[in-house]
Amino acid sequence: ANAVAELAIGLMLYAVRNLYNGTSGTELMGKKLGIHAYGNVGCNVARIAKGIGMDIYAYDAFCPKEVIEKDGIKVVNSAKELYQLSNVVSLHIPATAETKNSINHDLLNNLPKGGILVNTARKEVINESELIKFMEERTDFKYVTDIMPAAHDRFTELFAGRYFSTPKKMGAQTAEANINAGIAAAQQIVSFLKDGCEKFRVNKK
Amino acid sequence: ANAVAELAIGLMLYAVRNLYNGTSGTELMGKKLGIHAYGNVGCNVARIAKGIGMDIYAYDAFCPKEVIEKDGIKVVNSAKELYQLSNVVSLHIPATAETKNSINHDLLNNLPKGGILVNTARKEVINESELIKFMEERTDFKYVTDIMPAAHDRFTELFAGRYFSTPKKMGAQTAEANINAGIAAAQQIVSFLKDGCEKFRVNKK
Repeated sequence: ANAVAELAIGLMLYAVRNLYNGTSGTELMGKKLGIHAYGNVGCNVARIAKGIGMDIYAYDAFCPKEVIEKDGIKVVNSAKELYQLSNVVSLHIPATAETKNSINHDLLNNLPKGGILVNTARKEVINESELIKFMEERTDFKYVTDIMPAAHDRFTELFAGRYFSTPKKMGAQTAEANINAGIAAAQQIVSFLKDGCEKFRVNKK
Repeated sequence: ANAVAELAIGLMLYAVRNLYNGTSGTELMGKKLGIHAYGNVGCNVARIAKGIGMDIYAYDAFCPKEVIEKDGIKVVNSAKELYQLSNVVSLHIPATAETKNSINHDLLNNLPKGGILVNTARKEVINESELIKFMEERTDFKYVTDIMPAAHDRFTELFAGRYFSTPKKMGAQTAEANINAGIAAAQQIVSFLKDGCEKFRVNKK
Protein backbone atom coordinates (compact mmCIF):
# COMPACT_ATOMS: atom_id res chain seq x y z
CA ALA A 1 0.00 0.00 0.00
CA ASN A 2 2.91 2.36 0.71
CA ALA A 3 4.36 1.68 -2.76
CA VAL A 4 1.13 2.86 -4.42
CA ALA A 5 0.89 5.88 -2.10
CA GLU A 6 4.45 7.01 -2.89
CA LEU A 7 3.68 6.74 -6.61
CA ALA A 8 0.44 8.74 -6.20
CA ILE A 9 2.38 11.55 -4.48
CA GLY A 10 5.17 11.32 -7.06
CA LEU A 11 2.66 11.69 -9.91
CA MET A 12 1.03 14.65 -8.11
CA LEU A 13 4.38 16.47 -7.91
CA TYR A 14 5.06 15.55 -11.55
CA ALA A 15 1.68 17.05 -12.54
CA VAL A 16 1.94 20.35 -10.64
CA ARG A 17 5.44 20.89 -12.08
CA ASN A 18 4.19 20.36 -15.66
CA LEU A 19 5.77 16.91 -16.14
CA TYR A 20 9.22 18.41 -15.37
CA ASN A 21 9.31 20.27 -18.69
CA GLY A 22 11.16 23.24 -17.18
CA THR A 23 8.22 25.64 -17.03
CA SER A 24 6.87 27.36 -13.94
CA GLY A 25 4.44 25.18 -12.00
CA THR A 26 2.61 25.27 -8.67
CA GLU A 27 3.21 23.84 -5.19
CA LEU A 28 1.22 21.24 -3.24
CA MET A 29 1.72 22.95 0.13
CA GLY A 30 -1.52 24.56 1.28
CA LYS A 31 -3.54 22.98 -1.55
CA LYS A 32 -6.63 20.89 -0.90
CA LEU A 33 -6.21 17.15 -1.43
CA GLY A 34 -9.29 14.96 -1.82
CA ILE A 35 -8.73 11.28 -1.04
CA HIS A 36 -11.45 9.30 -2.80
CA ALA A 37 -11.78 6.13 -0.65
CA TYR A 38 -9.82 5.92 2.56
CA GLY A 39 -8.37 2.40 2.68
CA ASN A 40 -4.75 1.31 3.20
CA VAL A 41 -3.47 3.30 0.26
CA GLY A 42 -5.52 6.43 0.99
CA CYS A 43 -4.26 6.38 4.56
CA ASN A 44 -0.61 6.27 3.38
CA VAL A 45 -1.25 9.07 0.88
CA ALA A 46 -2.65 11.17 3.74
CA ARG A 47 0.46 10.58 5.86
CA ILE A 48 2.81 11.85 3.15
CA ALA A 49 0.48 14.74 2.19
CA LYS A 50 0.50 15.90 5.83
CA GLY A 51 4.30 16.26 5.65
CA ILE A 52 3.89 18.28 2.45
CA GLY A 53 1.46 20.57 4.29
CA MET A 54 -1.67 19.86 2.25
CA ASP A 55 -5.18 20.42 3.54
CA ILE A 56 -6.66 16.91 3.47
CA TYR A 57 -10.25 15.76 2.88
CA ALA A 58 -11.63 12.27 2.31
CA TYR A 59 -14.80 10.59 1.15
CA ASP A 60 -15.40 6.90 1.72
CA ALA A 61 -18.81 5.28 1.31
CA PHE A 62 -17.96 2.46 3.75
CA CYS A 63 -15.30 3.67 6.22
CA PRO A 64 -16.76 5.11 9.45
CA LYS A 65 -16.29 8.87 9.78
CA GLU A 66 -14.54 8.53 13.16
CA VAL A 67 -11.80 6.26 11.76
CA ILE A 68 -10.83 8.87 9.17
CA GLU A 69 -11.16 11.84 11.54
CA LYS A 70 -8.86 10.12 14.04
CA ASP A 71 -6.08 10.58 11.43
CA GLY A 72 -6.77 14.32 11.36
CA ILE A 73 -8.48 14.19 7.96
CA LYS A 74 -11.69 16.12 7.26
CA VAL A 75 -14.57 13.90 6.11
CA VAL A 76 -17.12 15.00 3.51
CA ASN A 77 -20.46 13.36 2.80
CA SER A 78 -20.37 12.73 -0.92
CA ALA A 79 -18.00 12.30 -3.84
CA LYS A 80 -19.55 15.44 -5.35
CA GLU A 81 -18.64 17.48 -2.27
CA LEU A 82 -15.07 16.07 -2.33
CA TYR A 83 -14.53 17.05 -5.97
CA GLN A 84 -16.02 20.52 -5.43
CA LEU A 85 -13.39 21.47 -2.87
CA SER A 86 -10.28 19.57 -4.03
CA ASN A 87 -7.40 21.02 -6.05
CA VAL A 88 -6.11 17.46 -6.42
CA VAL A 89 -8.15 14.24 -6.17
CA SER A 90 -6.34 10.94 -5.58
CA LEU A 91 -8.48 7.93 -6.55
CA HIS A 92 -8.39 4.81 -4.36
CA ILE A 93 -11.79 3.23 -4.99
CA PRO A 94 -12.04 -0.47 -5.87
CA ALA A 95 -13.69 -1.63 -9.10
CA THR A 96 -17.16 -2.78 -8.08
CA ALA A 97 -20.56 -2.77 -9.75
CA GLU A 98 -21.24 0.63 -8.14
CA THR A 99 -17.88 2.27 -8.93
CA LYS A 100 -17.44 1.12 -12.54
CA ASN A 101 -17.56 4.14 -14.88
CA SER A 102 -18.38 6.31 -11.86
CA ILE A 103 -15.61 8.84 -12.55
CA ASN A 104 -17.62 10.57 -15.25
CA HIS A 105 -18.16 14.03 -16.72
CA ASP A 106 -20.74 15.07 -14.13
CA LEU A 107 -18.48 14.22 -11.20
CA LEU A 108 -15.26 15.67 -12.67
CA ASN A 109 -17.06 18.87 -13.61
CA ASN A 110 -17.25 19.73 -9.90
CA LEU A 111 -13.47 20.25 -9.75
CA PRO A 112 -12.28 23.85 -9.32
CA LYS A 113 -10.07 25.52 -11.95
CA GLY A 114 -6.67 23.84 -12.35
CA GLY A 115 -7.96 20.57 -10.90
CA ILE A 116 -5.84 17.43 -11.10
CA LEU A 117 -6.95 13.77 -11.01
CA VAL A 118 -4.41 11.14 -9.97
CA ASN A 119 -5.46 7.56 -10.69
CA THR A 120 -3.39 4.75 -9.20
CA ALA A 121 -6.54 2.69 -8.54
CA ARG A 122 -8.38 0.83 -11.31
CA LYS A 123 -9.00 1.34 -15.00
CA GLU A 124 -12.66 0.30 -14.89
CA VAL A 125 -13.73 3.14 -12.58
CA ILE A 126 -13.01 5.75 -15.26
CA ASN A 127 -15.63 6.59 -17.89
CA GLU A 128 -13.01 7.08 -20.56
CA SER A 129 -15.09 8.72 -23.28
CA GLU A 130 -16.54 11.20 -20.77
CA LEU A 131 -13.02 11.94 -19.44
CA ILE A 132 -11.94 12.81 -22.99
CA LYS A 133 -14.98 15.07 -23.40
CA PHE A 134 -14.24 16.73 -20.05
CA MET A 135 -10.57 17.33 -20.91
CA GLU A 136 -11.57 18.87 -24.24
CA GLU A 137 -13.83 21.33 -22.43
CA ARG A 138 -11.65 21.95 -19.39
CA THR A 139 -8.21 22.84 -20.72
CA ASP A 140 -7.12 23.72 -17.16
CA PHE A 141 -7.48 20.09 -15.99
CA LYS A 142 -4.69 17.48 -15.75
CA TYR A 143 -4.89 13.68 -15.59
CA VAL A 144 -1.98 11.51 -14.38
CA THR A 145 -2.17 7.76 -13.93
CA ASP A 146 -0.28 4.48 -13.86
CA ILE A 147 -3.21 2.77 -15.61
CA MET A 148 -2.95 3.34 -19.34
CA PRO A 149 -6.34 4.22 -20.84
CA ALA A 150 -7.49 2.15 -23.84
CA ALA A 151 -7.34 5.40 -25.85
CA HIS A 152 -3.79 6.26 -24.64
CA ASP A 153 -2.62 7.49 -28.05
CA ARG A 154 -5.62 9.78 -28.39
CA PHE A 155 -5.06 11.19 -24.87
CA THR A 156 -1.38 11.83 -25.69
CA GLU A 157 -2.23 13.55 -28.96
CA LEU A 158 -5.10 15.68 -27.68
CA PHE A 159 -3.79 16.61 -24.23
CA ALA A 160 -0.02 16.98 -24.53
CA GLY A 161 1.48 18.42 -21.35
CA ARG A 162 -1.56 17.73 -19.17
CA TYR A 163 -1.91 13.98 -19.51
CA PHE A 164 0.59 11.34 -18.42
CA SER A 165 0.41 7.59 -18.10
CA THR A 166 3.20 5.17 -17.22
CA PRO A 167 3.55 2.52 -19.97
CA LYS A 168 2.63 -0.23 -17.47
CA LYS A 169 0.74 -0.33 -14.17
CA MET A 170 3.49 0.15 -11.60
CA GLY A 171 1.85 1.32 -8.39
CA ALA A 172 2.66 -1.71 -6.29
CA GLN A 173 5.77 -2.60 -8.32
CA THR A 174 8.63 -2.01 -5.93
CA ALA A 175 11.34 -4.32 -4.67
CA GLU A 176 9.97 -3.82 -1.15
CA ALA A 177 6.37 -4.68 -2.11
CA ASN A 178 7.50 -7.79 -4.01
CA ILE A 179 9.56 -8.99 -1.04
CA ASN A 180 6.63 -8.39 1.31
CA ALA A 181 4.33 -10.37 -0.98
CA GLY A 182 6.87 -13.22 -1.18
CA ILE A 183 7.25 -13.34 2.60
CA ALA A 184 3.46 -13.38 3.04
CA ALA A 185 3.17 -16.29 0.56
CA ALA A 186 5.94 -18.26 2.29
CA GLN A 187 4.32 -17.71 5.69
CA GLN A 188 1.01 -18.99 4.34
CA ILE A 189 2.70 -22.19 3.11
CA VAL A 190 4.51 -22.67 6.45
CA SER A 191 1.24 -22.12 8.25
CA PHE A 192 -0.50 -24.76 6.11
CA LEU A 193 2.29 -27.32 6.59
CA LYS A 194 2.62 -26.68 10.33
CA ASP A 195 -0.94 -26.04 11.42
CA GLY A 196 -3.04 -27.05 8.41
CA CYS A 197 -4.26 -23.45 8.11
CA GLU A 198 -6.33 -23.16 4.89
CA LYS A 199 -7.26 -19.50 5.27
CA PHE A 200 -5.49 -18.45 2.05
CA ARG A 201 -6.35 -21.58 0.01
CA VAL A 202 -7.36 -20.47 -3.50
CA ASN A 203 -9.23 -23.45 -4.97
CA LYS A 204 -11.71 -24.34 -2.27
CA LYS A 205 -13.94 -27.35 -2.87
CA ALA B 1 12.39 27.35 -0.37
CA ASN B 2 9.33 25.09 -0.25
CA ALA B 3 9.11 25.12 -4.06
CA VAL B 4 12.66 23.75 -4.36
CA ALA B 5 12.04 21.19 -1.60
CA GLU B 6 8.90 19.83 -3.29
CA LEU B 7 10.84 19.48 -6.55
CA ALA B 8 13.71 17.67 -4.78
CA ILE B 9 11.23 15.14 -3.31
CA GLY B 10 9.44 14.85 -6.66
CA LEU B 11 12.73 14.07 -8.43
CA MET B 12 13.59 11.51 -5.71
CA LEU B 13 10.32 9.65 -6.29
CA TYR B 14 10.89 9.92 -10.06
CA ALA B 15 14.35 8.36 -9.64
CA VAL B 16 13.40 5.43 -7.37
CA ARG B 17 10.55 4.54 -9.76
CA ASN B 18 12.90 4.50 -12.78
CA LEU B 19 11.66 7.76 -14.34
CA TYR B 20 8.11 6.31 -14.48
CA ASN B 21 9.04 3.91 -17.27
CA GLY B 22 6.72 1.19 -15.98
CA THR B 23 9.39 -1.06 -14.46
CA SER B 24 9.62 -2.17 -10.84
CA GLY B 25 11.35 0.39 -8.61
CA THR B 26 11.98 0.92 -4.93
CA GLU B 27 10.33 2.91 -2.12
CA LEU B 28 11.65 5.86 -0.12
CA MET B 29 10.04 4.74 3.17
CA GLY B 30 12.68 3.45 5.56
CA LYS B 31 15.55 4.57 3.31
CA LYS B 32 18.33 6.85 4.55
CA LEU B 33 18.20 10.42 3.28
CA GLY B 34 21.31 12.60 3.52
CA ILE B 35 20.64 16.34 3.44
CA HIS B 36 23.84 18.07 2.35
CA ALA B 37 23.54 21.57 3.90
CA TYR B 38 20.65 22.27 6.22
CA GLY B 39 19.34 25.70 5.25
CA ASN B 40 15.80 26.78 4.37
CA VAL B 41 15.48 24.26 1.56
CA GLY B 42 17.08 21.36 3.45
CA CYS B 43 14.73 22.00 6.35
CA ASN B 44 11.67 21.80 4.05
CA VAL B 45 13.00 18.62 2.42
CA ALA B 46 13.34 17.09 5.90
CA ARG B 47 9.71 17.95 6.76
CA ILE B 48 8.35 16.16 3.70
CA ALA B 49 10.78 13.21 4.06
CA LYS B 50 9.53 12.71 7.63
CA GLY B 51 6.00 12.21 6.29
CA ILE B 52 7.37 9.68 3.80
CA GLY B 53 9.00 7.82 6.69
CA MET B 54 12.64 8.26 5.69
CA ASP B 55 15.53 8.03 8.13
CA ILE B 56 17.05 11.52 7.95
CA TYR B 57 20.67 12.66 8.35
CA ALA B 58 22.27 16.03 7.67
CA TYR B 59 25.69 17.58 7.33
CA ASP B 60 26.18 21.34 7.41
CA ALA B 61 29.57 22.97 7.86
CA PHE B 62 28.04 26.14 9.36
CA CYS B 63 24.70 25.29 10.99
CA PRO B 64 24.99 24.47 14.73
CA LYS B 65 24.33 20.81 15.52
CA GLU B 66 21.59 21.68 18.04
CA VAL B 67 19.53 23.58 15.44
CA ILE B 68 19.38 20.52 13.19
CA GLU B 69 18.83 18.04 16.01
CA LYS B 70 15.88 20.10 17.28
CA ASP B 71 14.09 19.10 14.05
CA GLY B 72 14.66 15.43 14.85
CA ILE B 73 17.40 15.03 12.23
CA LYS B 74 20.61 13.09 12.94
CA VAL B 75 23.77 15.17 12.44
CA VAL B 76 26.98 13.71 11.03
CA ASN B 77 30.43 15.32 11.18
CA SER B 78 31.57 15.29 7.57
CA ALA B 79 30.28 15.12 4.02
CA LYS B 80 32.13 11.81 3.66
CA GLU B 81 30.22 10.31 6.58
CA LEU B 82 26.92 11.59 5.13
CA TYR B 83 27.55 9.97 1.73
CA GLN B 84 28.69 6.70 3.33
CA LEU B 85 25.34 6.13 5.02
CA SER B 86 22.83 7.71 2.60
CA ASN B 87 20.72 5.84 0.04
CA VAL B 88 19.72 9.25 -1.33
CA VAL B 89 21.66 12.52 -1.00
CA SER B 90 19.85 15.83 -1.60
CA LEU B 91 22.27 18.69 -2.33
CA HIS B 92 21.57 22.13 -0.88
CA ILE B 93 25.05 23.68 -0.63
CA PRO B 94 25.67 27.18 -2.01
CA ALA B 95 28.32 27.82 -4.69
CA THR B 96 31.30 29.24 -2.81
CA ALA B 97 35.07 29.03 -3.26
CA GLU B 98 35.06 25.96 -0.97
CA THR B 99 32.10 24.12 -2.49
CA LYS B 100 32.89 24.60 -6.20
CA ASN B 101 33.68 21.23 -7.81
CA SER B 102 33.42 19.66 -4.35
CA ILE B 103 30.95 16.95 -5.47
CA ASN B 104 33.67 14.85 -7.02
CA HIS B 105 34.56 11.20 -7.61
CA ASP B 106 36.11 10.69 -4.18
CA LEU B 107 33.07 11.98 -2.34
CA LEU B 108 30.47 10.19 -4.50
CA ASN B 109 32.36 6.93 -4.23
CA ASN B 110 31.32 6.74 -0.58
CA LEU B 111 27.68 6.15 -1.57
CA PRO B 112 26.33 2.64 -0.94
CA LYS B 113 25.05 0.47 -3.82
CA GLY B 114 22.00 1.95 -5.57
CA GLY B 115 22.83 5.47 -4.37
CA ILE B 116 20.98 8.46 -5.78
CA LEU B 117 22.11 12.10 -5.97
CA VAL B 118 19.44 14.81 -6.28
CA ASN B 119 20.78 18.23 -7.24
CA THR B 120 18.42 21.20 -7.00
CA ALA B 121 21.25 23.44 -5.73
CA ARG B 122 23.94 24.84 -8.02
CA LYS B 123 25.70 23.71 -11.18
CA GLU B 124 29.16 24.86 -10.06
CA VAL B 125 29.35 22.50 -7.08
CA ILE B 126 29.46 19.45 -9.36
CA ASN B 127 32.75 18.25 -10.80
CA GLU B 128 31.15 17.23 -14.06
CA SER B 129 33.96 15.21 -15.63
CA GLU B 130 34.43 13.23 -12.40
CA LEU B 131 30.65 12.65 -12.18
CA ILE B 132 30.76 11.13 -15.68
CA LYS B 133 33.70 8.92 -14.67
CA PHE B 134 31.85 7.85 -11.51
CA MET B 135 28.65 7.01 -13.40
CA GLU B 136 30.64 4.94 -15.90
CA GLU B 137 32.11 2.90 -13.05
CA ARG B 138 29.05 2.74 -10.83
CA THR B 139 26.20 1.53 -13.03
CA ASP B 140 23.98 1.26 -9.92
CA PHE B 141 24.04 5.04 -9.34
CA LYS B 142 21.41 7.56 -10.47
CA TYR B 143 21.65 11.35 -10.92
CA VAL B 144 18.57 13.61 -11.11
CA THR B 145 18.72 17.39 -11.28
CA ASP B 146 17.00 20.56 -12.39
CA ILE B 147 20.38 22.03 -13.37
CA MET B 148 21.35 20.82 -16.82
CA PRO B 149 25.01 19.80 -16.98
CA ALA B 150 27.13 21.34 -19.76
CA ALA B 151 27.52 17.79 -21.11
CA HIS B 152 23.77 17.06 -20.99
CA ASP B 153 23.73 15.21 -24.32
CA ARG B 154 26.60 13.00 -23.27
CA PHE B 155 24.89 12.19 -19.93
CA THR B 156 21.68 11.31 -21.76
CA GLU B 157 23.49 9.08 -24.25
CA LEU B 158 25.72 7.29 -21.75
CA PHE B 159 23.34 6.94 -18.80
CA ALA B 160 19.86 6.42 -20.24
CA GLY B 161 17.36 5.50 -17.52
CA ARG B 162 19.55 6.64 -14.63
CA TYR B 163 20.10 10.29 -15.48
CA PHE B 164 17.45 13.00 -15.72
CA SER B 165 17.64 16.76 -16.02
CA THR B 166 14.79 19.20 -16.53
CA PRO B 167 15.41 21.33 -19.66
CA LYS B 168 15.55 24.51 -17.52
CA LYS B 169 16.27 25.23 -13.84
CA MET B 170 12.82 25.11 -12.27
CA GLY B 171 13.30 24.55 -8.55
CA ALA B 172 11.94 27.89 -7.37
CA GLN B 173 9.72 28.35 -10.42
CA THR B 174 6.21 28.08 -9.03
CA ALA B 175 3.32 30.51 -9.13
CA GLU B 176 3.44 30.65 -5.32
CA ALA B 177 7.19 31.41 -5.18
CA ASN B 178 6.86 34.15 -7.81
CA ILE B 179 3.97 35.78 -5.92
CA ASN B 180 5.94 35.61 -2.65
CA ALA B 181 8.96 37.25 -4.32
CA GLY B 182 6.74 39.99 -5.77
CA ILE B 183 5.13 40.69 -2.40
CA ALA B 184 8.56 40.85 -0.72
CA ALA B 185 9.78 43.34 -3.34
CA ALA B 186 6.67 45.53 -2.94
CA GLN B 187 7.04 45.51 0.86
CA GLN B 188 10.67 46.61 0.55
CA ILE B 189 9.62 49.56 -1.61
CA VAL B 190 6.82 50.53 0.82
CA SER B 191 9.25 50.26 3.69
CA PHE B 192 11.73 52.58 1.93
CA LEU B 193 9.05 55.15 1.06
CA LYS B 194 7.44 55.10 4.52
CA ASP B 195 10.41 54.64 6.85
CA GLY B 196 13.45 55.21 4.64
CA CYS B 197 14.54 51.62 5.26
CA GLU B 198 17.55 50.88 3.03
CA LYS B 199 18.13 47.30 4.18
CA PHE B 200 17.52 45.81 0.74
CA ARG B 201 19.18 48.59 -1.28
CA VAL B 202 21.29 47.02 -4.05
CA ASN B 203 23.70 49.78 -5.15
CA LYS B 204 25.12 51.06 -1.92
CA LYS B 205 27.54 53.98 -2.08
